[in-house]
Amino acid sequence: PLKKIMTTNVISVKTDTDQEEVARQVAHYDLLAIPVTDAENKLLGVVTVDDVIDVIKEEATEDIFYMAGVDVHDHVYTPVRGSVRRRLPWLGINLVTALIAASVVAFFEPTIARFSFLAVFLPVVAGMGGNCGTQTLTVMVRGLALGELTWANSRAALAKESLVGITNGLALGFVAGFAAYLWKSNAVLGLVLAGAMIINMFVAGVTGSVIPLLLKKINVDPAIASGIILTTFTDVTGFLSFLGLASLLLHYIPVS
Amino acid sequence: PLKKIMTTNVISVKTDTDQEEVARQVAHYDLLAIPVTDAENKLLGVVTVDDVIDVIKEEATEDIFYMAGVDVHDHVYTPVRGSVRRRLPWLGINLVTALIAASVVAFFEPTIARFSFLAVFLPVVAGMGGNCGTQTLTVMVRGLALGELTWANSRAALAKESLVGITNGLALGFVAGFAAYLWKSNAVLGLVLAGAMIINMFVAGVTGSVIPLLLKKINVDPAIASGIILTTFTDVTGFLSFLGLASLLLHYIPVS
Repeated sequence: PLKKIMTTNVISVKTDTDQEEVARQVAHYDLLAIPVTDAENKLLGVVTVDDVIDVIKEEATEDIFYMAGVDVHDHVYTPVRGSVRRRLPWLGINLVTALIAASVVAFFEPTIARFSFLAVFLPVVAGMGGNCGTQTLTVMVRGLALGELTWANSRAALAKESLVGITNGLALGFVAGFAAYLWKSNAVLGLVLAGAMIINMFVAGVTGSVIPLLLKKINVDPAIASGIILTTFTDVTGFLSFLGLASLLLHYIPVS
Repeated sequence: PLKKIMTTNVISVKTDTDQEEVARQVAHYDLLAIPVTDAENKLLGVVTVDDVIDVIKEEATEDIFYMAGVDVHDHVYTPVRGSVRRRLPWLGINLVTALIAASVVAFFEPTIARFSFLAVFLPVVAGMGGNCGTQTLTVMVRGLALGELTWANSRAALAKESLVGITNGLALGFVAGFAAYLWKSNAVLGLVLAGAMIINMFVAGVTGSVIPLLLKKINVDPAIASGIILTTFTDVTGFLSFLGLASLLLHYIPVS
């Protein structure tokens, strides 16, 4: 009789289980198929491993695309019209946040008019913060997708990423600051650049880990909007800390 | 006899087949296992679907991580030391390319000293080019990974992405240019910003599609270095086109 060979301890999923979770179960227990049951444990169907493979590929593509502001239905062979329609809104939002960040620079225009060399380092400070934050963001978003990152270990992750950010900031802030000092023989410029990079890369570590967790908490896919919120933060913080420090310190120094 | 039930048209792979290709075969034919044979078709083993799932997840994680400059062995629970050691070199390369791009701005310092409002738009032009190019890059890199993009259809993809880039550039270039015109009541500034954004987003579409194809051609994983080469290009082109156009056109206009 089947009783002798059947397993009674069955791993099954419900009809409303997220397909990502189904894929996780199948992958974790190395199953070839997983039964789907209703609330009364009545068997309604099965999901087979070949469909799970498609789900895993889809979900990975989704994560990659969302992080770059690309729609999942946008592919190499999508017509120009279709791709423009899907990408333009995202770039439009990017433009708005870029102009918001630019308004911080506009606020410091008198300082730049006096010390035009400051303009040279604006993209450096903002860009390094953005890169540093994107690294954190990627580890967090993928950690959430793979189930490695949970609400329980999120505090440890936040503490770790903040430390990584400030460490990388210290290392590269002083390298960049020294380069700036050599270029203009201006020690204050070097210190301002180093300070701004340390501040911005620390902020990048904090925001890069907090943003995906908060989005997950309010049930928004953390891959979708994390990048744009992060770079808005790192742009604003970068411009504000660099030009703010410069305004405070350079005005007491004669123009070289 | 088995002859009656066996399939003789067997899909198999060789011992030196890339694991990504094995995963593609299993996924494509919905197999539960695929035989591995040597050059004389002697059976050496099988790869089962549960291992293929792990490969697919790994490869996707690799693509996502490489694109953000993160090592595959860098996870949420990696100690601070380990993460810093893995991320710092990548950020260091980023800093060098950022300083190279910054030297373009330095070249135009006299122009910025005269027209300080130009500094406000530097990160906007460079950033929009970077975002636009990253969208193209992501579609191309994922297209290569999923086998959608081949050398045969690469010319069509390049033509398409260039068109998408210039279309998005036209749309957002004029929006940003109009915003700049309203802000400073300076039509030339508006035209300079629009022109620079159109040029840069076109260049972003071209380089975003060419770079991963070239890297693939020389057997470098296109996910690894594409991003940094792209942003170096879009930064340099952005600064050069914006400040170059400004130098040509603004010097004939009285300071407002």
